[in-house]
Amino acid sequence: MRKIIIDTDTAGDDAIALLTALHYFKVEGVTITGGNVAFDQQVENALYSIQVSNQDYYVPVYKGYEGPILATGEEEHRTVEDVHGRDGMGDAFFEKAKQRPEEKHAVDFIIEKVKEMPGEVSLLAIAPLTNIAMAIKKDPTIIKDIPHIYIMGGTNNTLGNITAAAEYNFWVDPEAANIVLHSGIPITMVGWDICTKYSLMDNDDHKEIEQLNTTGSDFFIKINKVVKDFNANVHRLNGTTHPDTILVAIAANEEIMTSSNTYYVAVETKGELTRGYSLVDINNRSGKQPNVRVCEAVDRAKYKECLLQVLKTIQ
Amino acid sequence: MRKIIIDTDTAGDDAIALLTALHYFKVEGVTITGGNVAFDQQVENALYSIQVSNQDYYVPVYKGYEGPILATGEEEHRTVEDVHGRDGMGDAFFEKAKQRPEEKHAVDFIIEKVKEMPGEVSLLAIAPLTNIAMAIKKDPTIIKDIPHIYIMGGTNNTLGNITAAAEYNFWVDPEAANIVLHSGIPITMVGWDICTKYSLMDNDDHKEIEQLNTTGSDFFIKINKVVKDFNANVHRLNGTTHPDTILVAIAANEEIMTSSNTYYVAVETKGELTRGYSLVDINNRSGKQPNVRVCEAVDRAKYKECLLQVLKTIQ
Amino acid sequence: MRKIIIDTDTAGDDAIALLTALHYFKVEGVTITGGNVAFDQQVENALYSIQVSNQDYYVPVYKGYEGPILATGEEEHRTVEDVHGRDGMGDAFFEKAKQRPEEKHAVDFIIEKVKEMPGEVSLLAIAPLTNIAMAIKKDPTIIKDIPHIYIMGGTNNTLGNITAAAEYNFWVDPEAANIVLHSGIPITMVGWDICTKYSLMDNDDHKEIEQLNTTGSDFFIKINKVVKDFNANVHRLNGTTHPDTILVAIAANEEIMTSSNTYYVAVETKGELTRGYSLVDINNRSGKQPNVRVCEAVDRAKYKECLLQVLKTIQ
Amino acid sequence: MRKIIIDTDTAGDDAIALLTALHYFKVEGVTITGGNVAFDQQVENALYSIQVSNQDYYVPVYKGYEGPILATGEEEHRTVEDVHGRDGMGDAFFEKAKQRPEEKHAVDFIIEKVKEMPGEVSLLAIAPLTNIAMAIKKDPTIIKDIPHIYIMGGTNNTLGNITAAAEYNFWVDPEAANIVLHSGIPITMVGWDICTKYSLMDNDDHKEIEQLNTTGSDFFIKINKVVKDFNANVHRLNGTTHPDTILVAIAANEEIMTSSNTYYVAVETKGELTRGYSLVDINNRSGKQPNVRVCEAVDRAKYKECLLQVLKTIQ
Repeated sequence: MRKIIIDTDTAGDDAIALLTALHYFKVEGVTITGGNVAFDQQVENALYSIQVSNQDYYVPVYKGYEGPILATGEEEHRTVEDVHGRDGMGDAFFEKAKQRPEEKHAVDFIIEKVKEMPGEVSLLAIAPLTNIAMAIKKDPTIIKDIPHIYIMGGTNNTLGNITAAAEYNFWVDPEAANIVLHSGIPITMVGWDICTKYSLMDNDDHKEIEQLNTTGSDFFIKINKVVKDFNANVHRLNGTTHPDTILVAIAANEEIMTSSNTYYVAVETKGELTRGYSLVDINNRSGKQPNVRVCEAVDRAKYKECLLQVLKTIQ
Repeated sequence: MRKIIIDTDTAGDDAIALLTALHYFKVEGVTITGGNVAFDQQVENALYSIQVSNQDYYVPVYKGYEGPILATGEEEHRTVEDVHGRDGMGDAFFEKAKQRPEEKHAVDFIIEKVKEMPGEVSLLAIAPLTNIAMAIKKDPTIIKDIPHIYIMGGTNNTLGNITAAAEYNFWVDPEAANIVLHSGIPITMVGWDICTKYSLMDNDDHKEIEQLNTTGSDFFIKINKVVKDFNANVHRLNGTTHPDTILVAIAANEEIMTSSNTYYVAVETKGELTRGYSLVDINNRSGKQPNVRVCEAVDRAKYKECLLQVLKTIQ
Repeated sequence: MRKIIIDTDTAGDDAIALLTALHYFKVEGVTITGGNVAFDQQVENALYSIQVSNQDYYVPVYKGYEGPILATGEEEHRTVEDVHGRDGMGDAFFEKAKQRPEEKHAVDFIIEKVKEMPGEVSLLAIAPLTNIAMAIKKDPTIIKDIPHIYIMGGTNNTLGNITAAAEYNFWVDPEAANIVLHSGIPITMVGWDICTKYSLMDNDDHKEIEQLNTTGSDFFIKINKVVKDFNANVHRLNGTTHPDTILVAIAANEEIMTSSNTYYVAVETKGELTRGYSLVDINNRSGKQPNVRVCEAVDRAKYKECLLQVLKTIQ
Repeated sequence: MRKIIIDTDTAGDDAIALLTALHYFKVEGVTITGGNVAFDQQVENALYSIQVSNQDYYVPVYKGYEGPILATGEEEHRTVEDVHGRDGMGDAFFEKAKQRPEEKHAVDFIIEKVKEMPGEVSLLAIAPLTNIAMAIKKDPTIIKDIPHIYIMGGTNNTLGNITAAAEYNFWVDPEAANIVLHSGIPITMVGWDICTKYSLMDNDDHKEIEQLNTTGSDFFIKINKVVKDFNANVHRLNGTTHPDTILVAIAANEEIMTSSNTYYVAVETKGELTRGYSLVDINNRSGKQPNVRVCEAVDRAKYKECLLQVLKTIQ
């Protein structure tokens, strides 16, 4: 099994993505970055998800940056309890997991693990890119030792989610996103557009999942309660979206991604209306060197199969 | 016939749009704004197009701002001879028209004409919005007297043309675009996306047009020579695009527009990567008051018929 | 007598500067730009000041732009009734002048007058530079025909007044300031720093002026009532400041300016904290071509004499 | 003796400041941040300066961030060999020191030392604020345990040095400066203005220092060779400036600082002309809570005595 570290602001679909990663990869560690909901809640959500997944090896959880690189005491980033529920888990208010987070800082864990097994540990990034950017900045020698980063973030010339121009993960910490995208590490980006086009689980899908009648399917149904309403009201989407899970599924099996191209991608940090906007320069109008493989289409059936396999397995 | 003023940086499709406007409207005047190619060349192109259209009334041409509002001696805007040919007319190098431009400034003409016939003269804008913004700023009392502005500009959550983020007309003068969009005048915006989806004339269409064998069709074929190659090379589009003509066609017959919605639209002026980006806030994430009717779909057959009707008529 | 046009947002010291200009120059016209207080109030203040000055020739007043170039309906510029009183005249609430403003737009007047007497009419600018920038943009051929613009605006590497970083006139319309500064027209800039160092009239000066016992001195005392308190409270300055009058005095008699140097000067338009900041590049760290003669020292005695001469003469 | 950590981009005056810190404080460690010259050269310069100072205890040197927080592979910060010589030591090209840098990252050292002796270790910052900002961001709980940060950086409403608007340390990493200034830690800022007004050592001072005829004075003379010419040519300053040494002297003996006030201070990160500008809001036009004690005057004689004492002692 391939080795990965997964960086997550665990809430909603992050939890399912975590189950998926634990199913298909050897997860060396889970690192938490500030994002969706209160930081400590995210840590608990990750620990509880690991407990639900019931692994036969210990999966350590490391606390990282609680907010974006440039946040000062004056201004904090915006969390989205309206999307994922007050607990980030569809208002399920699960019990506290037995496992506790590690003492070491997430960034130091990333650096040490990458240096310990150079070229072997890929990163799965389903949160703002603060931790990964800070790891690269603290020790730039890890750049050559990270084989690949799979990133859920940005949009490919379509509507954003947190603003019309921007997707949430890139918007929360656009400076971090730019550092990672320009690092030289091979990157695959799966944007919000892919999630809305290919990851949607509608009412019928939910019924199918419910009928699996496993611990996994039960968990899925519970944590997706709040986001279903939110999607209907705000994004006019009928069902639940799974940006993080589809990212992990693609990393696990690249055949799920039926089309991709390498483009120059960068993130706007200065705009008044466009902070966090991801420029995907399809026609290379900028003349810049392409730096990111951008996912452009997905085999939805394969993706769904990949997800259901995970939920079925967790008895 | 409804009265209009058309503001144009006459090159390429602007010329066909001008013929279309002269066919379907009473054109009170043509105003020239800095944009596609050298300013004086644009003036000549407008005058020649009027001559080609062979009207039975005098259509005055007024020179306006030669470049964007904020251009200083230090930096000028970028023209696009690569798109439209050195003369902006597909390198056809037509003879000079007999008619000469008027003395009055375009902005003063717009103000005076609107005040002369309050509520009667709509504006068709197929160039950077410099002239119209400057008219509004010079005499804000015209705002209530302009029934409608039809604008070719921006993109609706898709790829731009001059940069990945921005469409040319908004990009050249984003400050002007913002002034017009926030003026309170009823606005219809037809973006670059509409043009790529619905206005494309492919090889078969060109053949059909050629066989019309009129002065109009001959003119069409000539001025579209350079842009055809450009579209193939840069935008991966097979054929010629007609952003300006489709705008005029919609203004002439709103039934051509099969879908539209009113959204908050604004233009980024501060971004590093996104200058000129048009924010079309479909899910109203900004909470701002919608200000623009955005064209979302077109009846391509009706549009094509509208165009061919024009070319046929010009014997 | 040299010919000038004076552009003013007449309130407080603008009124005294107007008297000074009418004393030392042939004033071809007064143009009003949006700034200190409500636009129409400024027009009245200019008309009343002309009436007080009691000229033997007609001095026309032209209404120009009521706010900065980029102001949209959404956001207007900030006026400063706290500095100059609700009427901009120290809450003196003078009667309405008999003379009325002209019909012609200020910008058209500037263009026409400059073209009528090329090389003869200098501009005195004691307001945001909106009108002058818009005149240059509307007809760039006037650039070579304006011998000099004297500008009260900016600061020379010292504290601003409306913000820590910026002086009011440049802050209200930094885009206009940049257009004028980069126009190529010979420019003398007298910044807020000069006014605080050399123009202050303290209590003794006020007593001396009061004892002149003329219509002029009476007018001076009345309109300076509110600003005196404001300066003490906000700028820790004991007395009244006369940025506009010292500018006019220098234009009238350059010997008043005892030191000046030519530097590259530009205005920040993008900053978050520094909008309107005037970069005066004394050590040419930018490597840019110097474009502005910056006043660095004044003979205060001569300046005061120049002012008192004006107030004495108005019986 | 009070305990400190000193953060430095050791070149030129940093070296003298280091000697001064070693003289007056118990230096727990020296941390190096990217700035003046090549990073590894700075490390060598710090090690050599410690060797020159000849302490009876071991002073560890820690390597930190080699460039500003937001630097990506695409753009690096500008070093200033023109100011300090190719080696940052006046082209003296000293031999390599025997001591080598530690393995631990500077940021981890700062965090651990502060946590080890809460409330006891002040920071002296004479470089871009990258390391200190990153320490605060990595472990915000150190904020309450740092009694004071003395910062050489910014300017107080006067001319900058690297640009007209900005001082070098704040300009290199304005984002870091903002994080530190807004951290809530008590801060004293000594700006470039203080250095030009009070720290200048002119030809006579240099002669006096030379005649001390100590290892310390010899070191001083050598490393100040290049900067003397630079100051004369660029800043029109006759002599050498000692921004870092005056900062350390003030930290060592606050009586040297004869005037100071607490103001709101922030750094511009978005400006086009003003990146790195330090807003010192003396008249509180922003209405923000004051956060920085700003040094406004120095007793030059005391400062000079403090410096000479250091140079004399190093035999």
